[in-house]
Amino acid sequence: MINHSSSKSASLPFTVAVSRGSMVESHHLVAAAICDSTGRILQSWGNVESPVYLRSAIKPLQALPLVESGAADAFDVTEKELSLACASHNGEPIHVEAVTNWLNRIGLGIEALECGCHWPTYDPAARALAVSGQEPSAAHNNCSGKHSGFLCTAVHLKETTTGYIHREHAVQQRIVKVLEDFTDLDLSNAPVGIDGCSIPTIAIPLQNAALAFARFADPSTLTVARATACKRLQKAISKYPEMIAGSDRLCTALNGAAEGRVVAKVGAEGVYLAALPESGIGVAIKALDGTTRAAEVALGAILEDLGILDEHVHRAIDPYVRPILRNRNDIVVGEITAVIDS
Amino acid sequence: MINHSSSKSASLPFTVAVSRGSMVESHHLVAAAICDSTGRILQSWGNVESPVYLRSAIKPLQALPLVESGAADAFDVTEKELSLACASHNGEPIHVEAVTNWLNRIGLGIEALECGCHWPTYDPAARALAVSGQEPSAAHNNCSGKHSGFLCTAVHLKETTTGYIHREHAVQQRIVKVLEDFTDLDLSNAPVGIDGCSIPTIAIPLQNAALAFARFADPSTLTVARATACKRLQKAISKYPEMIAGSDRLCTALNGAAEGRVVAKVGAEGVYLAALPESGIGVAIKALDGTTRAAEVALGAILEDLGILDEHVHRAIDPYVRPILRNRNDIVVGEITAVIDS
Repeated sequence: MINHSSSKSASLPFTVAVSRGSMVESHHLVAAAICDSTGRILQSWGNVESPVYLRSAIKPLQALPLVESGAADAFDVTEKELSLACASHNGEPIHVEAVTNWLNRIGLGIEALECGCHWPTYDPAARALAVSGQEPSAAHNNCSGKHSGFLCTAVHLKETTTGYIHREHAVQQRIVKVLEDFTDLDLSNAPVGIDGCSIPTIAIPLQNAALAFARFADPSTLTVARATACKRLQKAISKYPEMIAGSDRLCTALNGAAEGRVVAKVGAEGVYLAALPESGIGVAIKALDGTTRAAEVALGAILEDLGILDEHVHRAIDPYVRPILRNRNDIVVGEITAVIDS
Repeated sequence: MINHSSSKSASLPFTVAVSRGSMVESHHLVAAAICDSTGRILQSWGNVESPVYLRSAIKPLQALPLVESGAADAFDVTEKELSLACASHNGEPIHVEAVTNWLNRIGLGIEALECGCHWPTYDPAARALAVSGQEPSAAHNNCSGKHSGFLCTAVHLKETTTGYIHREHAVQQRIVKVLEDFTDLDLSNAPVGIDGCSIPTIAIPLQNAALAFARFADPSTLTVARATACKRLQKAISKYPEMIAGSDRLCTALNGAAEGRVVAKVGAEGVYLAALPESGIGVAIKALDGTTRAAEVALGAILEDLGILDEHVHRAIDPYVRPILRNRNDIVVGEITAVIDS
């Protein structure tokens, strides 16, 4: 249950300012919640009670059934693959090869993926693919690792794999159950959209999303099996951060440099979720206009505020969370900064 | 002089909503002004009095000295090249070849461009360039047409071309003078930033930007020489809309389909400026968060509101101004719509 009693205020403003020259050129509004695993809201900005599509930021929880079902053990799923199961990856060769190998090991091919195709989101990888004379496959889809995890679980449980993206399929039903457990919500009437990769994306208030990630961070009140699964995913993400995103990505920089003290995942349309295992805290962020640059800067400001960024982590993530804007001639033209009231 | 007397209200809200499933997922705040060439504000939304970097949206006015100086005639600058001088182009072969030819004709090479290099912004063009084994040059920079116009003017006027991007260079000083003439502002103390292509970008309130584009639309009160230059640029943009942007771009779709009834130009960080020559109206839009998708949808809504979109134009621009969102499997997942109060 969410408990507002310790929240300093639910209406503090939180903006991200994009400056150029002497002036703010653009600005973003942010809503965010920080929660502990008991449901206590430690801090919030903006509206954290209205439902928000968490998109790919919720992937670490969507990967839990892969571990909890026994599928990961049955198929010798590696830590790299577990990190990949939580990924919105760049479509770089390491990601595509890992997906292909994993699918082969469970007796499937790339054609089993129902996520659709797109060119790698990392431009150099897209150009390299074009140079090699190839077209993108579903393995290049940024969600192909998550979908491989879905397929692995379905194969292990002897479920039909076709249609695993649909809401009524057992794969998606297990995820709904996980989300209900972690958010304390009955999601049967929650708003549902279709995500970029065609699975359902369920809208959840930021306060409940923060609670969910707080429980992921501190699973001590959960069953031993679930707690073990949470820790296993956290370890995999921290150990193989290149698998959860890739080159030039905040998720990779942060999950790597934080060495387990932060487990964070971006989602489309300006969402970021983070778990802080040491303090058992969860953070949920939505840039209201859906821009990733705002969510990244907001995450940096909140982590800074929580006092968990040492020099090593700062060096790794500052290019994303305190970006200096340079133009085509590499001239510094501006910066992006958080304007946070706490 | 700006005249507020006819403005219905300066504080009407204008938002753009991004929906997915049954819910609004993200939303954008927009400020916009509609002005006639006498400075009468016909309508405005949000704050139109604070300075805004107009970025590349102001390019049609930045191209005026190219015509007014006599450089365009002296160097037989074509209508295609005039449209290109106003462009933020995709870096497609038609753009790069045109820039290269133009520079050669004025006795310069690509190395004279001071805009910096970047991969073509149009992904298929970037991949094709990579496949051809080439790296991008300054000619692929989306601003290379504008810079070619700058160089053409400088060569014609026998000015040093080196450093033409700097504020103190005569090329930039002429632009400041044009902007002051068109906006009725003394810009000597206006906020200035450095644009992506390294020239100064001067902040101008939306109401004055709308006035500037109204005068560009209806130059009847300007000198004959300037009015002729405005009409010549309008005609070039309408006749060769593929040069001002390129494949899959609203600027190209709109300037082409409108056949001279709208001359519009996008700018970075959510800016759009449009001139309506038939009614002598100028429109200036800024998505406050800097997102192009919001500026495009806002422009569509304003043009619709002004009653100038026939079925032909709608068909051309609706994919940009009333976008239906499809995912990686081409499933409809949402839409972007304007919520406009008028």
